[in-house]
Amino acid sequence: MSRFSPALEELIDALRVLPGVGPKSAQRIALHLLERDREGASVLSRSLATAVEKIGRCTRCRNLTEHELCEICSDTRRDTSSLCVVENPGDILAIEQTGGYRGLYFVLMGRLSPIDGIGPEEIGLLELEQLAREQTLEEVILAASPTVEGEATAYYLMQLLTPLVGKISRIAHGVPLGGELEYVDGSTLAHALSGRQPVQTS
Amino acid sequence: MSRFSPALEELIDALRVLPGVGPKSAQRIALHLLERDREGASVLSRSLATAVEKIGRCTRCRNLTEHELCEICSDTRRDTSSLCVVENPGDILAIEQTGGYRGLYFVLMGRLSPIDGIGPEEIGLLELEQLAREQTLEEVILAASPTVEGEATAYYLMQLLTPLVGKISRIAHGVPLGGELEYVDGSTLAHALSGRQPVQTS
Repeated sequence: MSRFSPALEELIDALRVLPGVGPKSAQRIALHLLERDREGASVLSRSLATAVEKIGRCTRCRNLTEHELCEICSDTRRDTSSLCVVENPGDILAIEQTGGYRGLYFVLMGRLSPIDGIGPEEIGLLELEQLAREQTLEEVILAASPTVEGEATAYYLMQLLTPLVGKISRIAHGVPLGGELEYVDGSTLAHALSGRQPVQTS
Repeated sequence: MSRFSPALEELIDALRVLPGVGPKSAQRIALHLLERDREGASVLSRSLATAVEKIGRCTRCRNLTEHELCEICSDTRRDTSSLCVVENPGDILAIEQTGGYRGLYFVLMGRLSPIDGIGPEEIGLLELEQLAREQTLEEVILAASPTVEGEATAYYLMQLLTPLVGKISRIAHGVPLGGELEYVDGSTLAHALSGRQPVQTS
């Protein structure tokens, strides 16, 4: 039996689009906003409308942007001979925050998953192939997640790009820094062992 | 170092008004909406704007509503001789869902908390007093939460309403149904003991 007013019910329903928000949380959020932060709710409403209206894909790297080219692609100080292929825009931020990469990116917006109907076209591999043909790329770094689908995606990309690019690399998978060996899961440890690097005494 | 576009940064900031959402979650939500559910994001934007614009307080019980009187106050089938005082609109829904109460409500929108500057006026006790004077109330049920502030609020309400209302009651506090005695906290158990009810053999 619902006893909230229609506009409030509508808001509670609409809040369910947020990831991880069920009926109870939606109700709590709606009441919180209306009782305590109407100003913030208005700002959120406007920001959502603006974002949905203006933000599209960068025509070069498929990153989210409100311009034709995203901020990274239009930055002339970036190294255009290096391309890092990531799954999501969030991955770009994570890599940028390390400060250790100055090249460009390409965002797949997902990973190959035939079972969900996601094939090469859906993750923009036609555009990526064209980009690799048109631009002189010295290195392509594959940064797909080390999941089954991510591995399949990386393998497909390797096949696709080998004839076009001189060097293709994959980010290292292994024991995370600060991680204790005995608490690391078996697959990661196996990866770390098979990917061992020679140590030189100089 | 931020590398998202301004509209996206703005959306991520705006999402921080949601309770329990920090910078990381805000980023995840923003990317989720833009990548996977733009339609839902538009609906949410409109619902928020409508709710903020239209939803106000019921002039009688202070519940959230977009009309002068809320749906419960304007329902002529409700028992007007009984009034249940709750802290939040969400509490009304919880009580309504039990189906065991047919009277009216009064929403405090908080509880007495002098340390936060919340006194009797902020939680609408002037309106409540006036309501009790104007209307013939046979019973007022105090349903404030059993916290320190809730107890203080209930005590204050009792003092205020005793001269005006015949019967003032408080919802029972004790061991929840299905709860096992050994796992119930001490204060609840103490409440349950001191609030014991005589059992009649008929």
